[in-house]
Amino acid sequence: MTTQLLKNFVAGRWQAGTGAGTPLFDAVLGTELVRVDATGLDLAEAFRFAREAGGATLRALTYKQRAAMLAQAVKVLQANRDAYYDIATANSGTVKNDTAVDVDGGIFTLGTYAKLGDGLGDVHHLTDGDAARLGKDPLFQSQHVQVPTRGVALFINAFNFASWGLWEKAAPALLSGVPVIVKPATSTAWLTQRMVKDVVDAGIFPAGALSIICGSSAGLLDQLQPFDVVSFTGSADTAAVIRSHPAVVQRSVRVNIEADSVNSALLLPSTSAEDTQAALDLLVKEVAREMTVKSGQKCTAIRRVFVPEALYDAAAAAISARLAKTTVGNPRNEAVRMGALVSRTQLAAVREGLAQLKAHTDVLHDGAQATFIDADPAVACCIAPTLLGTRNPDGTSIVHDVEVFGPVATLMPYRDVPHALALIRRGQGSLVASLYGTDPAALSAAALELADSHGRVHVISPDVAALHTGHGNVMPQSLHGGPGRAGGGEELGGLKALNFYHRRSAIQASTAVLGNL
Amino acid sequence: MTTQLLKNFVAGRWQAGTGAGTPLFDAVLGTELVRVDATGLDLAEAFRFAREAGGATLRALTYKQRAAMLAQAVKVLQANRDAYYDIATANSGTVKNDTAVDVDGGIFTLGTYAKLGDGLGDVHHLTDGDAARLGKDPLFQSQHVQVPTRGVALFINAFNFASWGLWEKAAPALLSGVPVIVKPATSTAWLTQRMVKDVVDAGIFPAGALSIICGSSAGLLDQLQPFDVVSFTGSADTAAVIRSHPAVVQRSVRVNIEADSVNSALLLPSTSAEDTQAALDLLVKEVAREMTVKSGQKCTAIRRVFVPEALYDAAAAAISARLAKTTVGNPRNEAVRMGALVSRTQLAAVREGLAQLKAHTDVLHDGAQATFIDADPAVACCIAPTLLGTRNPDGTSIVHDVEVFGPVATLMPYRDVPHALALIRRGQGSLVASLYGTDPAALSAAALELADSHGRVHVISPDVAALHTGHGNVMPQSLHGGPGRAGGGEELGGLKALNFYHRRSAIQASTAVLGNL
Repeated sequence: MTTQLLKNFVAGRWQAGTGAGTPLFDAVLGTELVRVDATGLDLAEAFRFAREAGGATLRALTYKQRAAMLAQAVKVLQANRDAYYDIATANSGTVKNDTAVDVDGGIFTLGTYAKLGDGLGDVHHLTDGDAARLGKDPLFQSQHVQVPTRGVALFINAFNFASWGLWEKAAPALLSGVPVIVKPATSTAWLTQRMVKDVVDAGIFPAGALSIICGSSAGLLDQLQPFDVVSFTGSADTAAVIRSHPAVVQRSVRVNIEADSVNSALLLPSTSAEDTQAALDLLVKEVAREMTVKSGQKCTAIRRVFVPEALYDAAAAAISARLAKTTVGNPRNEAVRMGALVSRTQLAAVREGLAQLKAHTDVLHDGAQATFIDADPAVACCIAPTLLGTRNPDGTSIVHDVEVFGPVATLMPYRDVPHALALIRRGQGSLVASLYGTDPAALSAAALELADSHGRVHVISPDVAALHTGHGNVMPQSLHGGPGRAGGGEELGGLKALNFYHRRSAIQASTAVLGNL
Repeated sequence: MTTQLLKNFVAGRWQAGTGAGTPLFDAVLGTELVRVDATGLDLAEAFRFAREAGGATLRALTYKQRAAMLAQAVKVLQANRDAYYDIATANSGTVKNDTAVDVDGGIFTLGTYAKLGDGLGDVHHLTDGDAARLGKDPLFQSQHVQVPTRGVALFINAFNFASWGLWEKAAPALLSGVPVIVKPATSTAWLTQRMVKDVVDAGIFPAGALSIICGSSAGLLDQLQPFDVVSFTGSADTAAVIRSHPAVVQRSVRVNIEADSVNSALLLPSTSAEDTQAALDLLVKEVAREMTVKSGQKCTAIRRVFVPEALYDAAAAAISARLAKTTVGNPRNEAVRMGALVSRTQLAAVREGLAQLKAHTDVLHDGAQATFIDADPAVACCIAPTLLGTRNPDGTSIVHDVEVFGPVATLMPYRDVPHALALIRRGQGSLVASLYGTDPAALSAAALELADSHGRVHVISPDVAALHTGHGNVMPQSLHGGPGRAGGGEELGGLKALNFYHRRSAIQASTAVLGNL
């Protein structure tokens, strides 16, 4: 029996691809779940319909009206939450807590933009700063405005966040009045497709506002026109292909890239034994958590851990002890704490990356020895967490350059804070670094030192041990993105996210004209 | 006798190229003035010195301290102003009023950033917005900061603004704490080199803060590292080369592009004959001015002129009458209103572009009939203004696509405002559009309609006839740049210009830590 072929939603119609389809699998059982296919779609019509019909209708609404649509979408998604959990359990192999990061994280982000957008009011453009005089006479002034770009937003998304990856981008785009075409990663496209289907079926957004294409991305970039934007999350290699495409090179299509990131955790030195232990405890807990949440398949996960030389052995032992308790296997079994990777392809990639790192590091905790609960190692995409370490961080370039996208991190000692900061900078730009310590001034100084090379610095001190939102959790209030290797993109950050979907313009005019804006 | 070989200033030393050098010429007399050459420079050392020595020293200063250096540079440049006028007269062939746009415009922009920077105070980073709670408990919050990027700013500049093009970019870069390496366009590099020399000789900026490389740009992009930025002004073809370079594609080097732009002027319809005439007069004066200032060699100059159908003939006659009065020739002669293009290469390019447009348009005022004052047509890079026109703007794609970088514009009639706006949008993104009319509400509505496809909309109504700053003049308070064909860049806009040279980061921490920022 063949599985269901998921349809695409473009040009206002559900359309099946004409090919045989690419199967999606259960990450633990290996069974085929559904198929996706985009063969034969009229992409020119799809983009034109979104750009023209979708764009015009969205722009005719106010920010407040569009925010109300986001709030309606939140309700629809919440009503169908169980179905999303079932899909994620099967297709992504995630335990409930990990599914929540994706599903509930996505809905929460959408809800946050519904609230933020409501505050923008019943207007059709945004004022950007105060008017500035252009001479001594105040009658002639310059006023910057932000208006929605008159194009489509194409999202080419990653496999690890089928829900959150859609909504964290779609929320600011739709709120801005820009129609969305999402191309989810094939291996986990089901959840994205189902969420779009539920929202489309509920008739919340105008025709052309939200489209989805599942399957191959062939030909998508060729459709991009000068006022379109493209937001990509994935590998640096694919990012380079996008950046080199004629749409970007010749038509100035705006691009947002989130690519590789070898994120760091840094334990700052403390003066007292008590403070040292308190900060170390915070680091150990967070590193173990970050390594195992979503089996380490988070672009924000901790990959490098830096501790003062004297604490290397203690940190290694404490992190390893926590990892040893992490039960791995079928997420349907309540005893399991960590599920699977999303696919055998990812499993092979993680094993290969791990082998590369192992050739230059010591294995401090070996996941290869673990047994899985309710999961056949020959079929399931499961892998247990592994902690690596090297006492020679300066001479081991590979640990600063290679991101293994699984439950793997490398522990390293440092001599003094400048040494630690220099080592962290060898990541050449990351999404996030986290700091652990007890001295507010030292934490603040280190955060500022890392700010230019990290889109986010997450500071964990004992006073916020129970409050902080987690190294790897992306909060909609904060910027998500990072320079250099991390791709240079900027997502979220509250209303800052709207910038990408707007065009800024300076209107120079008499105050009588500016008064009509 | 060979002319002087201008030196480059890199790695803190004046260094002559080892080649024969490329000559720069007098734009009217055709005589050789000086030579430039970058052969044999150690570019790796040049970039490393700027990035490391220059960057560290600049970042150790506060914004207020760096602003004070800009103010000192203003004084040095003002003291040497006569020399700059002499160089521009010879090398760019510009009359005094046109030289002022470049030389005094550059100094004014530098001075504006000195004032803006002084207001930022004695701090080393900028706070970006308010802190946001990350949960119900206010103890853990997110605060965005902006910190200087730890790289160099490479400027690859255009021939038409040897002074302003340097300072409008260098002012925000240096104020941000980012060292500058400027590569001026070869044909007019002399003025840029002389200004940098005066500032360097005055010892204002720390070693490595300001470098200049004159001659070939070969190898410059290869030096770029992930935290560097590059700002380019010039042709779309060269822009595409920069965007495709591995530094950009693979290392996420941030790029700002200002490329081609087929800017528009739009006369809105008026209801009374009196208002119609008033608005038409404003348009005619501005179009004639924009066509002739700097011989039309401004990326912001008006290339397309749209008037209501009934006013086509009147506009053609009135603009032509003004152009007929424009005396062209040697800028050293007081009777001359418009000087030369910068080079025979540019003259050939303008003649070629003009021939292309002429094949599809009517010649309403023919510059080919003009005679030059004190200038030999066989030697001088002079060309008189030409007004073209077509009554078929919908069917004449070339006028919306081809930018002739000289004293050339095309007049077109439109049926109604939506038709005019659609025609303007066929420019596929421009730097600036100007609007002429008497109804504030209609002007404001049209400005907002054009805002997404133009970095700036300049509105001229009778009340600001004597006050407005000009369609083509770039004011430091306003954004300079445009989407699509115009390259998608953003320069100036007051303190917004600092964004390009900063990295944004969200610091998530306890209020105790954030209080130390």
